Amino acid sequence: MGKLLIVGTLAFDAIESPFGKTDKILGGAATFIGLAASKFQVDSAIVSVVGDDFPQEYLDLLTNRNIDISGVEIVQGGKTFFWSGKYHNDMNTRDTLVTELNTLADFNPIVPEDYKNADIVMLGNLHPSIQMGVINQMSTRPKLIVLDTMNFWMDNALDELIEVIKHIDAITINDEEARQLTGEYSLVTAAEKISAMGPKYVVIKKGEHGALLFDEKNIFFAPALPLKEVFDPTGAGDTFAGGFSGYLASTENISFENMKNAIIHGSNLASFCVEKFGTERMQSLKKEEVEERLHQFKALTQFDIEIK
Amino acid sequence: MGKLLIVGTLAFDAIESPFGKTDKILGGAATFIGLAASKFQVDSAIVSVVGDDFPQEYLDLLTNRNIDISGVEIVQGGKTFFWSGKYHNDMNTRDTLVTELNTLADFNPIVPEDYKNADIVMLGNLHPSIQMGVINQMSTRPKLIVLDTMNFWMDNALDELIEVIKHIDAITINDEEARQLTGEYSLVTAAEKISAMGPKYVVIKKGEHGALLFDEKNIFFAPALPLKEVFDPTGAGDTFAGGFSGYLASTENISFENMKNAIIHGSNLASFCVEKFGTERMQSLKKEEVEERLHQFKALTQFDIEIK
Repeated sequence: MGKLLIVGTLAFDAIESPFGKTDKILGGAATFIGLAASKFQVDSAIVSVVGDDFPQEYLDLLTNRNIDISGVEIVQGGKTFFWSGKYHNDMNTRDTLVTELNTLADFNPIVPEDYKNADIVMLGNLHPSIQMGVINQMSTRPKLIVLDTMNFWMDNALDELIEVIKHIDAITINDEEARQLTGEYSLVTAAEKISAMGPKYVVIKKGEHGALLFDEKNIFFAPALPLKEVFDPTGAGDTFAGGFSGYLASTENISFENMKNAIIHGSNLASFCVEKFGTERMQSLKKEEVEERLHQFKALTQFDIEIK
Repeated sequence: MGKLLIVGTLAFDAIESPFGKTDKILGGAATFIGLAASKFQVDSAIVSVVGDDFPQEYLDLLTNRNIDISGVEIVQGGKTFFWSGKYHNDMNTRDTLVTELNTLADFNPIVPEDYKNADIVMLGNLHPSIQMGVINQMSTRPKLIVLDTMNFWMDNALDELIEVIKHIDAITINDEEARQLTGEYSLVTAAEKISAMGPKYVVIKKGEHGALLFDEKNIFFAPALPLKEVFDPTGAGDTFAGGFSGYLASTENISFENMKNAIIHGSNLASFCVEKFGTERMQSLKKEEVEERLHQFKALTQFDIEIK
C-alpha cells in the first residue's frame, strides 16, 4: 500500500445541465480525485485550501474515507473557491458562468511532513506554479508525479506550465488541449511532442470517446463505457485521474502493463461519476457495483483472435 | 468457406485532401468492400453497374482477387458513377463537390444464379430500393444480411430505407446518422431504437473514435488504430464493412463472439485504407502487414485485471 498525495481544489460547484440545476454543492478536483482514490487501499492526503464557509460535513466526508486533510488550510473569514457552469445539450461542451477564486487566489500549498515522501503525487488542475511549489516540497523524489491541467493555463500561464511539465512523469490532458499545447492534430504526434517536453507517460482524455495512454513505445486505449444517459460530466476527468493514481499507489507498480489496468479503473469510476450531479454517485458507490462494471469493461473490449 | 454477395457502386472518385489531389481514380463502395473481403478465404461476387468508360484493368484488379464480376453490368455508351469530394483540415468532415449518377441512375441489379444462395449479403451504400431488390432475388434466406447506408437516404428515401431495414440482420451506420435516424443522442438508446426497426445487430461507426457493436444484450467496442497521419478517409467505412462481412463469411460463424473479431478485422483493414489515396494502400497490402497490425490492436486494447 503506497502513499498518495493529492493536490487540488476543494470547491463549491453550481451546475446546470439539460437534466436540471443544482444549488452550491460539493465539488473541486481534489474532492473527486480523493473520492475515486479512496476506492483502493491507499494512504492518501489532500493539500488544498477552503474558506470557513466550507461545511464540516464535507471535510468529514473525506476523513471518513481515510483521507488525511491535515494539508487542507481553512482560511478564517475567507470564502471557498466557487465554480458555476452550464452544459449544452450534447453534454460534451459547457459554458463557465462564474469563477470566484476566493481563497484559492492566495493559495500557498503546505505538504504535510508525513507526505513529503509520498510514492505518488497527483497534481490536480491548478495554477502550474502552485503545482511546482508542491513538487519542490517533496523530501524524496516520488516514484510517479502525475499532473492534470487545462487550456486555461495554456492561455494564461504557458511558461509556468511548460516548466512544471519538465518535472513530471505523467500528464493527463484532454484531446483539444493536447492539440492546443502542441499545434498537432494527430494525437499520436501530439503525445510524442508532449512526452519530449518531460513526462514519460501521456494520457489523452477524449471524454465519451475514451482515453489513450502513451509511453515511448506503447499505446493503450480504454473506451468510455457507453451509457444511456450522461447526467453531469463534472468531475469525470478528476475521477479518472483519481482512479488512475489511486490504483497505481495501491498496487505500487508503475509499469506500463499496470498502467493499462489503472486506465481501465479510472474509466470505470468515471463512468459512475457522470450518472448523478456532482459527487452524489461517487458517495453512494459500492464495491460490488465497481466490480460488476469492470466485468462490463472486459466484455466491451476483450476479444480472442488467433494471429499467426 | 462461405459465399459473400457484395452489392454497391464501382466508381470514379476525385479526391482533394490537405495532402494533395487526385485525378479520377478507382473508387466505389463495392470496390472497397471487395478488396477488404478478399483478404479472407471467401467466394465473393460483386453486383454493380459501370459504363464502358470503366477501364478493364479495374475489373481485372477485382477478378485477380477471385472476385466474381459476372454480376457487374457494363452499359455500352454509358458513363460510370463519378464522385468528387474535398476533405477539410481535420479529415473528419468533407464537402461533396460533384455527384454524377450516370449509369447508376437506372441501375437494376441482377444477382448471378450462383450467388442467389450466398451465405452473407453485404449491401453497400445505395438507394434502399436497389438494396431491397437484391434481397428479393435471393433464392434462400442468407444467414446474414448486412446493410450500409448514409444520411442522404434518410433525407431523400426514408420510407424505402425503413422498409429495407426491416429485412436485414445487421446495419452499419455512423454515429451522426444513427442520431438522425432515431432522434436520440445516446448511441446506446439509438442502437436500441434501430434494432427495434429490424436488425438484430447494430454497428455504429465513429470514424477515428472506433466502432460499437450492439445486440440485444451485449456491447463490444473496437477503437480505430491511432495513426500519425490520415491521408484519405475515402472508403474507410466500406473497407470496415468488407472486413466485417468477409471475415464472417470466411469463418461461417455469426455468433456475437465471432462478430467481435469481425469488428476488429474491419477496423484493422480500415486503418490501412486511410494511409494512401483511394484504393492504393489496399492494393499493395500484404498478409504479413495485416497480421502485424492485428498484434497492435491486441496491445492497444487487451488488459488483464483480476476481478472478484
